[in-house]
Amino acid sequence: MDEFALIRSWFADLAPDGECIALGIGDDCALLDPPLGEQLAITTDTLIAGRHFPADTAAQDIGWKALAVNLSDLAAVGARPCAFVLALSLPVADQTWLDGFARGLRACAQAGSIALIGGDTTCGALSITITALGTLPAGSALRRSGARAGDLVCITGTLGDAGLALQAWRAGSPVDGEDQRWLRARLDRPTPRNAAGMALRGIASAAIDLSDGLFGDLAHVCTASGVGAELRLDALPASAPFRQLAPAADRAALQLAAGDDYELCVCVAADRFGEAQRACGPLPLTAVGRIVAGAGVRLYDAVGAIVELPIDAYRHF
Amino acid sequence: MDEFALIRSWFADLAPDGECIALGIGDDCALLDPPLGEQLAITTDTLIAGRHFPADTAAQDIGWKALAVNLSDLAAVGARPCAFVLALSLPVADQTWLDGFARGLRACAQAGSIALIGGDTTCGALSITITALGTLPAGSALRRSGARAGDLVCITGTLGDAGLALQAWRAGSPVDGEDQRWLRARLDRPTPRNAAGMALRGIASAAIDLSDGLFGDLAHVCTASGVGAELRLDALPASAPFRQLAPAADRAALQLAAGDDYELCVCVAADRFGEAQRACGPLPLTAVGRIVAGAGVRLYDAVGAIVELPIDAYRHF
Repeated sequence: MDEFALIRSWFADLAPDGECIALGIGDDCALLDPPLGEQLAITTDTLIAGRHFPADTAAQDIGWKALAVNLSDLAAVGARPCAFVLALSLPVADQTWLDGFARGLRACAQAGSIALIGGDTTCGALSITITALGTLPAGSALRRSGARAGDLVCITGTLGDAGLALQAWRAGSPVDGEDQRWLRARLDRPTPRNAAGMALRGIASAAIDLSDGLFGDLAHVCTASGVGAELRLDALPASAPFRQLAPAADRAALQLAAGDDYELCVCVAADRFGEAQRACGPLPLTAVGRIVAGAGVRLYDAVGAIVELPIDAYRHF
Repeated sequence: MDEFALIRSWFADLAPDGECIALGIGDDCALLDPPLGEQLAITTDTLIAGRHFPADTAAQDIGWKALAVNLSDLAAVGARPCAFVLALSLPVADQTWLDGFARGLRACAQAGSIALIGGDTTCGALSITITALGTLPAGSALRRSGARAGDLVCITGTLGDAGLALQAWRAGSPVDGEDQRWLRARLDRPTPRNAAGMALRGIASAAIDLSDGLFGDLAHVCTASGVGAELRLDALPASAPFRQLAPAADRAALQLAAGDDYELCVCVAADRFGEAQRACGPLPLTAVGRIVAGAGVRLYDAVGAIVELPIDAYRHF
């Protein structure tokens, strides 16, 4: 099968007419009509088997996650998802695998209102690179560099679920209860927070999505903003399955450094926290700390004592 | 080394302030300000070691080629290069290799006036996916679908050089003469035809870049345009080194189906051929055939007899 047949067979229906799409799949380039007065936000992320997802991950979950992690980057700047291109490297063009992959990709694309406009398929080790584009009013992007001393550090959703599921997978634990399945879905099918990101434009002072873990990702915000941050360990939001199943000794590391949460970490002036919570609608937004003058991220326990944890940001090499 | 240090060390200087770049490397997304009234052209291409380039290809040539093949897609629609994102998968973060790769990428980016605005680095088998963006006046893109019966089929530059170099590499032939080195450079450092592509907007009726070989790529134009094409084998432009070194029995296949030429194939109304040639400036534009009613690509020799060749388009799987 040549790449044209492959794209036609599995992905053509992923390319509906979007309002800013002048030309989709099938030519040397796709063409976009950027909305007047809007900027384009662009991000790219690669998923590699065994590195970014367990090797036994279902094809449909890989399809979902490959797009979801890119949507999460658009969420972090507050952009409205518009279109994406898919570079798919596969050892063999296995029909069952491709069916599942396309199904997961399609589900995530429909949930995120984003259209496939082009791609490239190659024969090689399993690897998926997606480049996603979004739009937002010029000058309105949420940036890492806008945090100011006194801002609250806030987190959407809960932390540590995906890390706990990965820990269980590494230990060979079966995924056989409702809680275990829910946690595994948090790893395999992260929910990008695009509605929250868009709603927080003009309210949050800074934002980042949590791919590598709060401790390291917040440190990037601090560096970019020239500030420090204090986190309260007891304030970190945890799901009921996490509270039920996470070993006490691992909780802080799982919530702070395990990565793969794909929640948003946003900084908000203290007097706008209620407004920020309302902007997130039904999605919980929890204050977990404060931006301070200085540099670096420090951890505190419930009574204000400094906590030292042997954790570090996720390292890519 | 984490990915942020890697990107800062090797690629930060590849991101000059471009006129439409509002935010480059370093946040969750890059931001572009699309020029008023212009469309964005988007393309993505992956290079994999041993598949898209010989495994012993120098790192700087891999860096060049990974960007050049994407610039070539922008050339095919006539877009002005603007910005690109780089997804780089590497088995190890080898400093010497990265130095070379970044040098080649930088040289190609400077030659093509395109800026690096973001990326992702992962640990895995060597693979490079670049997504490139260009701009062009709305509605002016060269398309595969515009060819009309009577148009001349025209080719920039020469055909078969890269294929001959790849054949020599597969045979283990040394690259030890001036002609051999020139041919190998045609394989390793293709020159994207962006100036010609932009100049041919409003003149050419259709265009495609030659990545998989003229026979297969022209067939895509025919399918998209609902026409057929006739090619004259004796008219195919060949370089002096190719004429010197290509085995007579292989010439047609090398020129028609070996791929990797990255020249443009454009269709031009016969009465605008001179104008098209002048638009290409010093780059030769050669008429090699004609668009006809019907379907498919047929080959003819110098006296007009049909030629059957056992060639097919490059197959990705």
